[in-house]
Amino acid sequence: MTGEHEVDVRLSDAQRLDWLRLIRSENVGPRTFRTLLNHYGSARAALAALPDLARRGGATRGPRICSREDAEHELAAARELGVTLVALGETDYPERLREIDDAPPLLAVRGNRAALARPMLAIVGARNASAAGQKFAERLARDLGAAGFVIVSGLARGIDASAHRASIASGTVAVLAGGHARVYPPEHLDLLDAILADGAAVSEMPVNWEPRSRDFPRRNRIISGLALGVIVIEAALRSGSLITARMAAEQGREVFAAPGSPLDPRAEGSNGLLKQGATLVTAASDVVTMVEPILGRLVSMTEAAEPAAAPAAPEPDDAERSRIMALLGPSAVAIDDLIRLSGASPAIVRTTLLELDVAGRLDRRHGLVALV
Amino acid sequence: MTGEHEVDVRLSDAQRLDWLRLIRSENVGPRTFRTLLNHYGSARAALAALPDLARRGGATRGPRICSREDAEHELAAARELGVTLVALGETDYPERLREIDDAPPLLAVRGNRAALARPMLAIVGARNASAAGQKFAERLARDLGAAGFVIVSGLARGIDASAHRASIASGTVAVLAGGHARVYPPEHLDLLDAILADGAAVSEMPVNWEPRSRDFPRRNRIISGLALGVIVIEAALRSGSLITARMAAEQGREVFAAPGSPLDPRAEGSNGLLKQGATLVTAASDVVTMVEPILGRLVSMTEAAEPAAAPAAPEPDDAERSRIMALLGPSAVAIDDLIRLSGASPAIVRTTLLELDVAGRLDRRHGLVALV
Repeated sequence: MTGEHEVDVRLSDAQRLDWLRLIRSENVGPRTFRTLLNHYGSARAALAALPDLARRGGATRGPRICSREDAEHELAAARELGVTLVALGETDYPERLREIDDAPPLLAVRGNRAALARPMLAIVGARNASAAGQKFAERLARDLGAAGFVIVSGLARGIDASAHRASIASGTVAVLAGGHARVYPPEHLDLLDAILADGAAVSEMPVNWEPRSRDFPRRNRIISGLALGVIVIEAALRSGSLITARMAAEQGREVFAAPGSPLDPRAEGSNGLLKQGATLVTAASDVVTMVEPILGRLVSMTEAAEPAAAPAAPEPDDAERSRIMALLGPSAVAIDDLIRLSGASPAIVRTTLLELDVAGRLDRRHGLVALV
Repeated sequence: MTGEHEVDVRLSDAQRLDWLRLIRSENVGPRTFRTLLNHYGSARAALAALPDLARRGGATRGPRICSREDAEHELAAARELGVTLVALGETDYPERLREIDDAPPLLAVRGNRAALARPMLAIVGARNASAAGQKFAERLARDLGAAGFVIVSGLARGIDASAHRASIASGTVAVLAGGHARVYPPEHLDLLDAILADGAAVSEMPVNWEPRSRDFPRRNRIISGLALGVIVIEAALRSGSLITARMAAEQGREVFAAPGSPLDPRAEGSNGLLKQGATLVTAASDVVTMVEPILGRLVSMTEAAEPAAAPAAPEPDDAERSRIMALLGPSAVAIDDLIRLSGASPAIVRTTLLELDVAGRLDRRHGLVALV
């Protein structure tokens, strides 16, 4: 996937530390990180601007900024586990993952990083999968592995474990909801070791992060984001696998589902995906046929990790800021409407929203914003 | 489905006897029957013309014409079993079945003819169905019956029997491959009796016809032809249910399939249908949603069973006949090409082909013709 003649883009150690401090700071998620980086040109400049930004956004106290010591401590803990932090835009960063809006600025990678450069397909499904479902997951993972694809999954019991196990030899990637030192479920530590021989495990969390239930849906966007497509095998209604499928669709990834008996509750979610237009899969060839044309279209889109020069960062004056604030409330409003109704420039509106973001006062969803 | 103010179209006893003789005569199938009726205006006139037609078509002997005695004998045998022969175009003839190209000119009906006037859905599937498949067929038949649909199937073991059993109370129709006195499989005689209380059994064969294996695919076109759509539950590759589904598609009927495990050979055919675009069914509502708009579009299209006056029936002269014959051979040719290349009128070409038909020398398939 990676062109032969690419420049090897790489952050300096100091830059990587700044990136880690910025993404670990309060109210800075992957989207805000990207906005801050574009706005200030570097993580260092963004870190310096955070207190003032938050104050202008109406925060009563500055956001908790990750200290240099904490970041160094995390880097050391990562090194000890053999975990590398790969930055968005670096050559080693997985090519498809960087396309998504909320790609992790730093991806903590353990194992064989080369696996992340190959085309990937995700296989996910029920933890309480049937024997037939697990057998099918194994067959599909083995056949897709033989066809040259790396299999991505979530290291869960059931379908995930079957998919990983059957693709250990050909290459598989486990995406963790917690940190690398807090593998869940713990009984899959041996499986993880086997995966790491030729494959990799990735996480966006600090190595010692204990996964909470809300970290799993958030993690699922990385599973789908890494892959060309997501294959769902045995998913009940309202299951995590359906969240992964929805994220895949939002990210423009192909969604596949294995059919199941209408009487089996474990197939309700996957059959539902088929009704919504997911591609039916009974064999690896069904998947390969769909993704081969996509592979052909992929072009290398490497950019420098940090913009070479800081772009102009216009600051709103008080009148502009209050016109924009007057339009915001607990109900969601489109950013386009904010620009139109406030009469302010898009750059000014973006900066004001960034201030609110960093102050922890903004809820962004699907291009809509609301005060929290 | 039948309008309240329709004229009750009905053949005379003499006409019905002529129809029966014509369709039971050698080389006269449902399509040729229709052509002959259109060409000669009545079955009686067609019967009179058969020997001459066959001779002109190059037959070395006249076609075996069903005698008046044989036809009377069949009618008596039918009466004895409580079987009525309903003619294409008569008010009682099932509305959707008359739309297909090769609708049986006479449908032998036993049981409650009123069931044939209601909207129908076919449920077909594997004889060696799984317990889950049979349970799903029962659920679907019961729910579609409650929604007002009559369930059509083929009285076979497995899915067919489950679908019939679950819709005995709401109305179900069994389509037989043999005659009414030769029910197959014999162990379903009790089931058939239960079906006949409120539903019906239909056949296009003489009452004493022992079904041969090639009669089953032929029968399947009647199953799909009667119905708004065909639902396939558990069909292996190269199974009869797939033939029914193909015929349904050719007849413009909706095709539905229940999903099944990719590891279950009994689901290979039905999953294959889903890949080809069949609608996935896990509940009756999936079917009802698709067919309700069709129900709304259906308009009564009753025509007189026999045309009021015989249309002009141009006879080819020898030069025309030999020009057309020169274009025919063992390779299939389009009728449109025959007309264009021979320079003869469409009516002349049609008559020449009819002669060959009745002489048993023509193979017609999908608008193509070839000499046999």
